[in-house]
Amino acid sequence: MTEAHAELGPPPPLPKGGLRVTPLGGLGAIGRNMTVFEFDGKLLIVDCGVLFPDVDQPGVDLILPDFSTLLDRLGDIQAIVLTHGHEDHIGAVPYLLAHKNDIPLVGSKFTLALVEAKLAERRITPYTLTVTEGDQERLGPFTCEFFAVNHSIPDALAVAIKTDAGVVLHTGDFKMDQLPLDGRITDLAGMARLGSEGVDLLLSDSTNAEVPGFVTPERQIGPVLDNIFRDAKGRIIVASFASHVHRVQQVLDSAQSHGRKVALIGRSMLRNMGIARDLGFLKIPQGLLVTMDEIRELRPDQIVLMSTGSQGEPMSALGRMATGDHRHVTMEPGDTVVLASSLVPGNETAVFRVINQLSRAGAIVVHKDVAKVHVSGHAPAGELLYLLNTVKPTNMMPVHGEWRHLRAHARLAIDSGIPADRVVLCEDGDVVDLVNGRAKVVGHVKARYVYVDGLAIGDVGESLLTERKMLGDGGFISATVVVDSVTGKVVGGPMVSAKGFSDDPAAFNPVLPLITEALDRAAADGIGDPHQLQQIMRRTVGRWVNDKYRRRPMIVPTVVEV
Amino acid sequence: MTEAHAELGPPPPLPKGGLRVTPLGGLGAIGRNMTVFEFDGKLLIVDCGVLFPDVDQPGVDLILPDFSTLLDRLGDIQAIVLTHGHEDHIGAVPYLLAHKNDIPLVGSKFTLALVEAKLAERRITPYTLTVTEGDQERLGPFTCEFFAVNHSIPDALAVAIKTDAGVVLHTGDFKMDQLPLDGRITDLAGMARLGSEGVDLLLSDSTNAEVPGFVTPERQIGPVLDNIFRDAKGRIIVASFASHVHRVQQVLDSAQSHGRKVALIGRSMLRNMGIARDLGFLKIPQGLLVTMDEIRELRPDQIVLMSTGSQGEPMSALGRMATGDHRHVTMEPGDTVVLASSLVPGNETAVFRVINQLSRAGAIVVHKDVAKVHVSGHAPAGELLYLLNTVKPTNMMPVHGEWRHLRAHARLAIDSGIPADRVVLCEDGDVVDLVNGRAKVVGHVKARYVYVDGLAIGDVGESLLTERKMLGDGGFISATVVVDSVTGKVVGGPMVSAKGFSDDPAAFNPVLPLITEALDRAAADGIGDPHQLQQIMRRTVGRWVNDKYRRRPMIVPTVVEV
Repeated sequence: MTEAHAELGPPPPLPKGGLRVTPLGGLGAIGRNMTVFEFDGKLLIVDCGVLFPDVDQPGVDLILPDFSTLLDRLGDIQAIVLTHGHEDHIGAVPYLLAHKNDIPLVGSKFTLALVEAKLAERRITPYTLTVTEGDQERLGPFTCEFFAVNHSIPDALAVAIKTDAGVVLHTGDFKMDQLPLDGRITDLAGMARLGSEGVDLLLSDSTNAEVPGFVTPERQIGPVLDNIFRDAKGRIIVASFASHVHRVQQVLDSAQSHGRKVALIGRSMLRNMGIARDLGFLKIPQGLLVTMDEIRELRPDQIVLMSTGSQGEPMSALGRMATGDHRHVTMEPGDTVVLASSLVPGNETAVFRVINQLSRAGAIVVHKDVAKVHVSGHAPAGELLYLLNTVKPTNMMPVHGEWRHLRAHARLAIDSGIPADRVVLCEDGDVVDLVNGRAKVVGHVKARYVYVDGLAIGDVGESLLTERKMLGDGGFISATVVVDSVTGKVVGGPMVSAKGFSDDPAAFNPVLPLITEALDRAAADGIGDPHQLQQIMRRTVGRWVNDKYRRRPMIVPTVVEV
Repeated sequence: MTEAHAELGPPPPLPKGGLRVTPLGGLGAIGRNMTVFEFDGKLLIVDCGVLFPDVDQPGVDLILPDFSTLLDRLGDIQAIVLTHGHEDHIGAVPYLLAHKNDIPLVGSKFTLALVEAKLAERRITPYTLTVTEGDQERLGPFTCEFFAVNHSIPDALAVAIKTDAGVVLHTGDFKMDQLPLDGRITDLAGMARLGSEGVDLLLSDSTNAEVPGFVTPERQIGPVLDNIFRDAKGRIIVASFASHVHRVQQVLDSAQSHGRKVALIGRSMLRNMGIARDLGFLKIPQGLLVTMDEIRELRPDQIVLMSTGSQGEPMSALGRMATGDHRHVTMEPGDTVVLASSLVPGNETAVFRVINQLSRAGAIVVHKDVAKVHVSGHAPAGELLYLLNTVKPTNMMPVHGEWRHLRAHARLAIDSGIPADRVVLCEDGDVVDLVNGRAKVVGHVKARYVYVDGLAIGDVGESLLTERKMLGDGGFISATVVVDSVTGKVVGGPMVSAKGFSDDPAAFNPVLPLITEALDRAAADGIGDPHQLQQIMRRTVGRWVNDKYRRRPMIVPTVVEV
């Protein structure tokens, strides 16, 4: 396998007639998917998503791709092709359009509707080009052909990018459910035709490459939900992803056949299902939907609440119901809660916390470990092999996955007969050139995590996150003295205080004389420089806390000169 | 179901002839298992374990049961019965013995050997009574009968506690593998005999109550390991729990049959396997074990490393191999790493981080989602029903589980025919009295989480953890001024600094004049009280940071008087 990482230098100039592929996100972590294609001086971007932070990124709201290599080439960008409407594929579009708001967005009807709703909140009206499966569009030197793919959101597309350098097929996210709810299967036949014409490079979704076998058809979820609806004596609350139109459709259908009414809860659920209905992706039986006010008139066994919060988000509708903080809904014994969603890695603690809170309140909680109330939207190993064997690409690059997924996918590619030296295993920022039918890593560009925290973007970096982790683990102890700026003598303090360190208010008493003593010694040695005094205080407090507590709080010494 | 929680008051005096059962841990979270039984003024404790902290307890090393209700009754404790040698059942023994070191410990040979090794590190030699399945022992007014149970550690026991109030059966942790490696199955026949004599209260392990069906027999793991060993071309590194003697035995056996040598790595692995071998629980073929020095002389395909670190612990042997920080072992393409263990909830992020690091380094990583290299040690729903139907207890109390597990187990008990009002669903600190054959929650005692952080126990509480979370999410901004203690006038500062807030060194410049202005206004209003000045500074900085950043760092104002 061709492997290359950050230790590589910047890439050489792209040879004439070559195609350059630069993943700026999506490789090494699941999220912030973004790939830049360059040909003949022009750029085409596929997807522009966000990554949600995990415990290693405390206090961070979102993680963006690093746009820095694009900023002086914004005018070269022909379009941003969006494969589907999930946040990890469209969430960073507003941040890129903030730099240049007339870059055209290309995608399917539902995808564009979701991104337009998102941009409307920021008062951006984008230039868009709606495409559908089978379409072929020229975007500068790039000719794009679109293929239907089946995923956990409607109207998803794969895209073939054709240039004089060859044909690249980017699957986006996909699975190959052979009995999808909407009958729109992944167009393996179309991709076979493309493969027979020659695919020089395949970029394919690796999320489930470690999982053996094939997905359970979506249609098997419906009967499981029906069973739950039949058995439930009280209210039913279903939580799912706010964009999983087919899962919501199944809940609506079960509610309808069991004589229950449905209220949608959560801002994103309401918005997305409104869009889905308007565009014909969601069929809502007449009179089925009710408002939260109308719900109050119904008996518990007539009620279904369709909510967000399947990932344990504490501020979501379900999260607030679990803690008893929801304005309208208080959990009661006899309620049934269904988490009809996958468990995104990193969210386990939060999700099980919510399940335990709901269980404590008396609800019966059904989740995917207990019953088949959800199937993944990503193709497992068996399906990935079908795709590899059908497309028969000359070169292959696993995308959309953590290292464990990328490597498992690379092994599948090799097992399917692609020579190991044509399987390109990359991480974010690696630059891959396709020249003369051969894909090779040629360099690396900056692809840092760009953190959004509150209103500011990019002022939170790795060293600051290390400080947060240190503060979060051990709190801090601050020590303050006042020195005379002329004589260098201590004229006030030391004052010691701490946060997150100890509940014992007398904890710091023993260290005060130690600081005074150390400062006296410093004065005797003629040391009056504030920086040196701070170091002395830091060392004195640090040694004391280590000896006495074996803890490592942050030590924050301050010298104020008067 | 009888449910009772912390809103209850302290329990009334125990009626004469009644048995009191107080779980001090293990209910509501998996860990720190400890149950106190009281009869006729005497106490018997079953298990005394620790809980490992999760993301909600940053910086905490261990969580202990709250011993406060026991401290003035230490002399009444007849014994601590230890059901098996896992940390969540024995880990808090040293902390309880620190209060009174002659409380007798009762347990099986292997369990006591592990707890003695732990106590030896603290120079405590405990009083012990070794028991084995079938034994019956009088411990004050409590007669204990012991039953073999099968679990993920050898020599585990269930205990029946007989008093004039009735018979209680406490399963400890168990599963009912019908083909265990050591042939020692859970003694369902013995428990059936006990049940036919009458069990008034069953306390039973709820960990897998949500999981349908039955465990896969341990013997099916061996062939899976054998396949991995046959296919591996390079070194094999297996990580498992350091007390899972049978899993290690399977690895030794596979190594032996594939002509590989084994080195044990990690302090606890070496210690526990030494004890297991000495006591006859682990059979090590002659010449199979080698030292890390001897490993260097072998080819990669002759090497097995048996390591700790299956839960993603960064400082464990495997954790350090993954980051390239291990003294002896650097991962290489071709290495195979097997995580032969369950994934303890809360550890997912850490475990997948290690798997990704190993994958990035080129290793093939096999874990339980990919191949059947581990089975749980806890009985799932099918087996719990067998136990319920065999023992036929009059009252039942689910133990050892989070709320979701306890409630699922309660439903199984009711499904098996126990009247709902005889299923006692409790949480830590609830007090259950068994009087005239009827178990009822009668009150609640203190059962706080007691945090160990470094050398100190109990000085870290919930409000302090909230401070740590706030600091960890947003860092802090400190603002310091010096005031004249006589005039109340500001004579130095304001100085502003921050940690974990922003990488921008000029970030605070705009807030300095705002603080000065606010303090000037305060001076004009005659405000000189340090406490009031601190509030003014806190408000000024807090408002500024919210307006400008929409962030909530901790604001730490300091007024030093000179």
